[in-house]
Amino acid sequence: MTAFDVIGFDADDTLWHSEDGFRANEDRFVELLTPYVSDGIEVKAALTATERKNLATFGYGVKSFGLSMVEAAVTISGGKIPSTVVAEMVEMVRGQLEEPVRLLDHVPEVLAKVGATRRMILITKGDLIHQTHKVTTSGLAHHFEHVEIVLEKDPETYARVLTELHIDPSRFCMVGNSVRSDILPVLALGGHGVHVPYPLLWDLEQADDHDRHITELESLADLPAWLADR
Amino acid sequence: MTAFDVIGFDADDTLWHSEDGFRANEDRFVELLTPYVSDGIEVKAALTATERKNLATFGYGVKSFGLSMVEAAVTISGGKIPSTVVAEMVEMVRGQLEEPVRLLDHVPEVLAKVGATRRMILITKGDLIHQTHKVTTSGLAHHFEHVEIVLEKDPETYARVLTELHIDPSRFCMVGNSVRSDILPVLALGGHGVHVPYPLLWDLEQADDHDRHITELESLADLPAWLADR
Repeated sequence: MTAFDVIGFDADDTLWHSEDGFRANEDRFVELLTPYVSDGIEVKAALTATERKNLATFGYGVKSFGLSMVEAAVTISGGKIPSTVVAEMVEMVRGQLEEPVRLLDHVPEVLAKVGATRRMILITKGDLIHQTHKVTTSGLAHHFEHVEIVLEKDPETYARVLTELHIDPSRFCMVGNSVRSDILPVLALGGHGVHVPYPLLWDLEQADDHDRHITELESLADLPAWLADR
Repeated sequence: MTAFDVIGFDADDTLWHSEDGFRANEDRFVELLTPYVSDGIEVKAALTATERKNLATFGYGVKSFGLSMVEAAVTISGGKIPSTVVAEMVEMVRGQLEEPVRLLDHVPEVLAKVGATRRMILITKGDLIHQTHKVTTSGLAHHFEHVEIVLEKDPETYARVLTELHIDPSRFCMVGNSVRSDILPVLALGGHGVHVPYPLLWDLEQADDHDRHITELESLADLPAWLADR
């Protein structure tokens, strides 16, 4: 008997690139602000702090990032930034939302291989319209028997999703790039997790110290072989 | 045998006030813009047109409304609006997102009565975090066996939700304030709908002409009696 009935996949930075788009727009934000801020202002740190402050109200995703950029721009420039520059931030949001999905290496082959013997679901957090568009335009949606877009990836949310889908947590394995969002909450439910790091990790995704041994694969391409014995 | 196994409820402007908050912020937007726009600009119409243009990319909800306000403000003022005024629009978004839920009259009693004999689900579209917060803080979540927050209320989406929940459309009745979003797509699936108008309806929710006879109740308070014979 196999160890896992169902494999769950994260999406952003697990199946396709995401964080690099945020980093590029953060860099652009710093460029745009630089002429309007006094020496001694840490522009990037102020933006991240604004995002952190707004997270509970605005939630994850590109639109929240855009609203935080507008707020931070006016705050740290003391209102000196022209509104035409602020309008560019709305265009940066639109660019991120409309950008075609850029799949990570090996993703289609890995999903085809894993899906041949296991049930697969997709669990992603963020903006409803952006995540939905990425899933549907990626060409990957048919691999998953269920796609769940959630507000937060905490144990309560995973428990709700697994219960609704009649999945036993002890027979479930989640694959993703964030220890904080994809692995620890699933382990807390008695499930399993495989960490596949992405080169970039958002500050707000940094995991607190954790003692547990966590399975880590260098590439998603290693997943079928890892699963073969389990 | 009863005619309906499951009653679906819309949320915004069906269970609680929503559109009046948008109208108040639209009025505020016009006030804020007036000093910076030339005579002959229709500020409110330009905002609505910006929202309509952005809908496919930004989706529904308060954050999308906020980004469209920023974009429209800079466009129709020709960049003359100060960024400090633009920052007020982010605060308007925050105000709407953080505002306590204001239930419509009779809602708790109606849900208790209907829920005594029928299964009930909630189907709402809009922003994931805002809708989730409203559902959980309303004190009403326990009435519903399932809460679905969707991107668009079209026949495909209703079909997916009903299939996942094993609900026969012919035994399903949806209750809501929008003919376009709550009634017509459910009728298209062979289901039933009860229209309970709210005094305000967003321009983008206006239904095209439709020939079908649609059941309309003046108040949600009339729903239990209407259902009693069915």
